[in-house]
Parts: sequence; C-alpha cells; structure tokens
Amino acid sequence: MKILEVKTGKPYKILIEGGLLTEVPEDLKKLNLGYRYALISDSQVAELLGEDLLCLLKEAGLSAELFIFPAGEASKNMDTVVSLAREMIRAGFDRKCAVIALGGGVTGDLAGFLASIYLRGVPYVQIPTSLLAQVDSSVGGKTGVDLPEGKNLLGTFYQPWRVYIDYGVLSTLPFEHLKNGLAEVAKYGCISSPELFEFLEQNSQKLLNYDAESLEHIIYESCRIKAEVVSRDEKEGGLRRILNFGHTLGHAIEAAANYQILHGLCVSIGMVAAALLSEKLGVAEEKISPRLVKLLEALGLPTRIPQELETEEILSFLRADKKVWKGKLIFVLLKKLGIPVFYEEPPKELLKEIVEELKAK
Amino acid sequence: MKILEVKTGKPYKILIEGGLLTEVPEDLKKLNLGYRYALISDSQVAELLGEDLLCLLKEAGLSAELFIFPAGEASKNMDTVVSLAREMIRAGFDRKCAVIALGGGVTGDLAGFLASIYLRGVPYVQIPTSLLAQVDSSVGGKTGVDLPEGKNLLGTFYQPWRVYIDYGVLSTLPFEHLKNGLAEVAKYGCISSPELFEFLEQNSQKLLNYDAESLEHIIYESCRIKAEVVSRDEKEGGLRRILNFGHTLGHAIEAAANYQILHGLCVSIGMVAAALLSEKLGVAEEKISPRLVKLLEALGLPTRIPQELETEEILSFLRADKKVWKGKLIFVLLKKLGIPVFYEEPPKELLKEIVEELKAK
Repeated sequence: MKILEVKTGKPYKILIEGGLLTEVPEDLKKLNLGYRYALISDSQVAELLGEDLLCLLKEAGLSAELFIFPAGEASKNMDTVVSLAREMIRAGFDRKCAVIALGGGVTGDLAGFLASIYLRGVPYVQIPTSLLAQVDSSVGGKTGVDLPEGKNLLGTFYQPWRVYIDYGVLSTLPFEHLKNGLAEVAKYGCISSPELFEFLEQNSQKLLNYDAESLEHIIYESCRIKAEVVSRDEKEGGLRRILNFGHTLGHAIEAAANYQILHGLCVSIGMVAAALLSEKLGVAEEKISPRLVKLLEALGLPTRIPQELETEEILSFLRADKKVWKGKLIFVLLKKLGIPVFYEEPPKELLKEIVEELKAK
Repeated sequence: MKILEVKTGKPYKILIEGGLLTEVPEDLKKLNLGYRYALISDSQVAELLGEDLLCLLKEAGLSAELFIFPAGEASKNMDTVVSLAREMIRAGFDRKCAVIALGGGVTGDLAGFLASIYLRGVPYVQIPTSLLAQVDSSVGGKTGVDLPEGKNLLGTFYQPWRVYIDYGVLSTLPFEHLKNGLAEVAKYGCISSPELFEFLEQNSQKLLNYDAESLEHIIYESCRIKAEVVSRDEKEGGLRRILNFGHTLGHAIEAAANYQILHGLCVSIGMVAAALLSEKLGVAEEKISPRLVKLLEALGLPTRIPQELETEEILSFLRADKKVWKGKLIFVLLKKLGIPVFYEEPPKELLKEIVEELKAK
C-alpha cells in the first residue's frame, strides 16, 4: 500500500492499493468520524460496488445506509443535493454522522458538497472509483454542483478526512474511463514531472492493460504533484491554476460538444492546443507538441478537435470560462516539459488559427 | 461609533452607529473586497433601504447591482439561493465580486450562504436591519437555508468580512420586531451578564422608545458576549450551545405555532420555561423566574404559551430539534443569573408539567 499525506489546512491521508475496498470498514472504525455513515453513490456504482460496500460496513458492525442518485453529470445539481439531504434528515442522520462518497468525479463533488453543508458540515471520506477521480478529485478539496449557466458554479472548499483509492475497481468500468484518467496523468507530467511523462511513454501498453504496479505508481505520483501544488495555494489564488493546463480550451471543447465527449479526452486535445500555443508564442524553449501528441496517441487519446464542432462556438465558450479573471483570459503554457507559465490574453486570431489547425484533416 | 473586533479564525470588525448606512460606501472602498458588489435584499427591505444604498454605492463610484428575493421565511430555501446565483452569473459576477447582505435574519443567513458557495466562496459583508439580526446574526458566522423537514438544515460556517449595524433603521420596521430583538438581548443577560440584565430592567421604557444611546449599549454588549462565546467554540462543539438558552422549548413553540409567532417572542416564553426547569430540578441556586418574567413583561414580551397550542405537539417538536445530540435532549439551564449549565434529558413528565403550567390561565 502507498500512503500519501496531504498537508492542507486539515491534513489527511490518501491510501492507495488494489483491493483496498475490503479494508475500508476497519480503517473507518479507527478513524471514528461518526456513529453512522451515509454511503452516497450513483445508480450505476451503487449496483457495481455500493451494495457490496454496504454489506462490508454492516458486517464490520458499523451503522450505514445507502443513498442513491441517478448516474450522470445531469444529476450534478442542487436538486440532487437537496433531495439526498432530505432523505438523510428523514432517516435521522444528525451532526454526528459521516458521509462516504463512493463513485466518480460527479459523486465526489456532489457528496463532498453535501457533506460540507449538511447541518453546516459533517466529516466525509472519498472512495473515488474512476481513474480520473482518483488522480484529480482526491486532492484539492473542491466540491460543487453545476448550474444551467455552467459547471461547478456553486460549491465549497472542503477537505475529505481520508481518501481510499482502490485501483482494482478500475477494470469494472468501461475502457474509455481509463483513458479519460490517463489524460489527467499526462497533464501532471507536463506541468511538473518529466519523469512521470517518461514513465507514461515507457509504460503506455501496461497501463492500458490495467497493470497494477504501473497504476499504483502513476496514481501516487499524480496525487503527490497535485497535493504539492494545492498545499501551496489552497484556495486557488494563483499557482494552483497551473492545474488548468489543457483545461482552458479543453473545457470550451467539452461545452461546444455539449458534454458528449469525456472530460479527459477534451483535456487531451486542450493540452495539444496549449503546447502549440506555447510554441507559436515563443514561450516554449523546445518543441513539445510532437512528443506530447505521440504520448497521447500511445495512450489512445484524441489529439484533434472533432470537425463537427464550430470554431466560433468553441472560441465563445473560452470567454465564458470561469478562468476569465477580472475579465482576462489566462492560459497555462509550457516553457519546457515540467515548467508551466501563465500567459494573459493570447491573440484571438492565434487561438482561432490553432483551433482550425486542430480541426483540419 | 462603537467598534467590536471579533476574533474568529478570520477576524473582522462590527461597526455600530446610528446613521451608519451612509458611511458604508466609503468604508467598503477602504476594505477593497472586490471590484463589484452584489447587494442582496428581500422585497421589503429593498424598497425601504436597498434602493437608497444602491444609489449611495454608485454615487461613491462603486459598481453595484441589486438582487431581490421575496420577503419572508418561506424564501429561505435552496431555490432562492440557486435563483439569486443564476442571476448573478448572468450579470457577469465573477470570483472577484463581493456580496452585501442587507436585511433581517433571513437575508443574512441566505446571502451569507450564497456568498459561501458562490464560485466556491466570495467575500461578504452584513448590514443587519432588524434588532434580532443585529444582536444575533452579526456574530457566529452561521449561514443557511431551511428544508421542508426543518430550519437551517443546510448551511455553512462563514464569517463576514465586516458587519455594519445602523440602529437608526430600526424605527422603519414594525414595533414587534424591536421586541423580537429585545428577547435575545435579555438572553445574553441571562447566560452571561447580570449587568446587562439590570440595564434592561432600568431602561426598558427608553429601549421601547428607540433611545439611541440605550440601543447602542445593548447591541454592543450582546455582540460582545456572543463574540466571546463563539471565539471559544467556533464550530459549535460545546460551549457555544449556551446560546441556545430559551431556544430549545422556544423552537418547539415556534414550530408548533407553524412559525406564525416571531422567533424572539417564542424564545421569551422558552426562557421562562428554562428558568422554571432550573428551579424545579434544583439546578438554580436562587429564584430566577419571577425577576425574568417581570423584565420580559416590561419589555412587552410574552411569558406564557398560547392556549391553542397542543402540549403533545410542542413536546414532539422538542425531540425533532437539531439540539438532540447522539439522541440526547440537552437543555441550557441557569445556576444563577449569568451562570448557565447544560442539563441532559430532563424528565419528560417535568417538561410536560411546565408546558401545561405555562399554558394555564
């Protein structure tokens, strides 16, 4: 088992191991977060893993109840939060309870947000079950829900009390979800670790075959890098925004595609765009995009924008992005692999040129 | 002007003065919380004070917009929060904005909650306009909304960046609201300050005539006492619960009356009940209830339970109260004036006896 200590305002541990799910109840007993557990899962994960975990918790003598919401990003809204909260209240969950978020990113964000506002805050632990959630949502304490006007517009910064990462569950999910997570791992390589980037280059096949040792390594490294960045900037004032590498255009593509393309796949394309932008603006001191494109392709990730998406629509979503600060659009670019820089307001014409280049052929 | 420094995790100042409203814009400029202000008010206060404050803000060269929700406790729910948030997003309010909560308790709780979750948190200041809000919500950082299952079930602990208390606005509200606040002031006297209690006894008539000097004194003292209690127990682990004196039965009466009686008036009756309970259980070392009843009557506050309320209904709401901890009902009682103690699970029969006694005649 690998253990990572995250040193945010309230420090907590991330435990990483294959088969960890079965060890959760005993560890929860030691943590002693509450006398009753609200296990929150979406309808898919509840069936795959939730019912089993509920049994394990009860067998271990813990009082627990399963609360299920419909799977999908469409559920990530305040109505779902309110309806889960009402169910918990009616089931008698008081301030001495704790929440367990079991599932992917939507579940982590939603259940974490619920925990942060339920009776003004109860403890919660995360059990991320997708690779994306494991390497992305495990660290940072961002919780939230969407509004019709955009994603994650309401939320809190609320650290979990513990995170359990069981990479053994990854093979129960569709293959696309593995690739979805690998894109974020590649991002950590780009912004902070040429070693991790190289590891991905050398182990892409193993990773695509769910090799345990390789998965453990990249999950640990990703969480470590994110923890390092976040501990220096808990509330997203500055540095933390390097985590948005590939996300600025990535989000715009995601929105233009009406969220029909997985997040990581959009980030993959967004990273290629950011690398090209770094080169064209003279920010990059070396060619990055060819090596990046090669890695992403080896990981089975897309590197070009689907032709059916409108260039103008993508560009307009760019401006609507939350990352517009005091009206300024800020991109994360790369000086070298592992060395990110912020760049304010790249020329609109250049952005358009890159989008069209990535759509061609 | 009186200034109180509240030393919570993030310290802030409470400014107390008649006519303070006109000084808010210049002070906000110095505070520099954001480059744009969302002024949030209910439909009544918006008309009485909101439009004027908006003009003052704009005259001072600040960018501000007024967001209005329907007046009344019925608005204190997640739908109102979501609809205000959506309006703010559509109006282009980003993370560099700040929220101004102008109004009574509902507005403070609602706008404070909104500020705490809007784009994961933006700064906010409070301008409480009712005496109850001035002496109760100014300190403590409790924000929240109701669910159909109960009051304040979803919320956060989120401290304001500043609180402006202008007691000059109190006379624009119905007289009942003055008495509503005086009940909470009497509570601070009971749990912490025989001097404040005596001041109320000696100045009840002046207070009921909105005497500026007397108001300033009791507001400052109330905030000071609450701040002292809260700074020692920010997240309501233990000590802070002494603020619930009179509230346990008070809330039950409020619920049984379907929230048709003002909060402070219910607390007034609840304090009499708690004093009687203290005496009957032998907790009180001196007779408290006669002097308390006399003061409350001098302040025009009720001291008996309306006969139309069902005893059994009141008692059943007691159990549903959030103050049931790990299944235990905890009352705040008085040893002497100014010396509160916690008491677990007073005999149900005794509670019933007191409720019936307070309903008789």
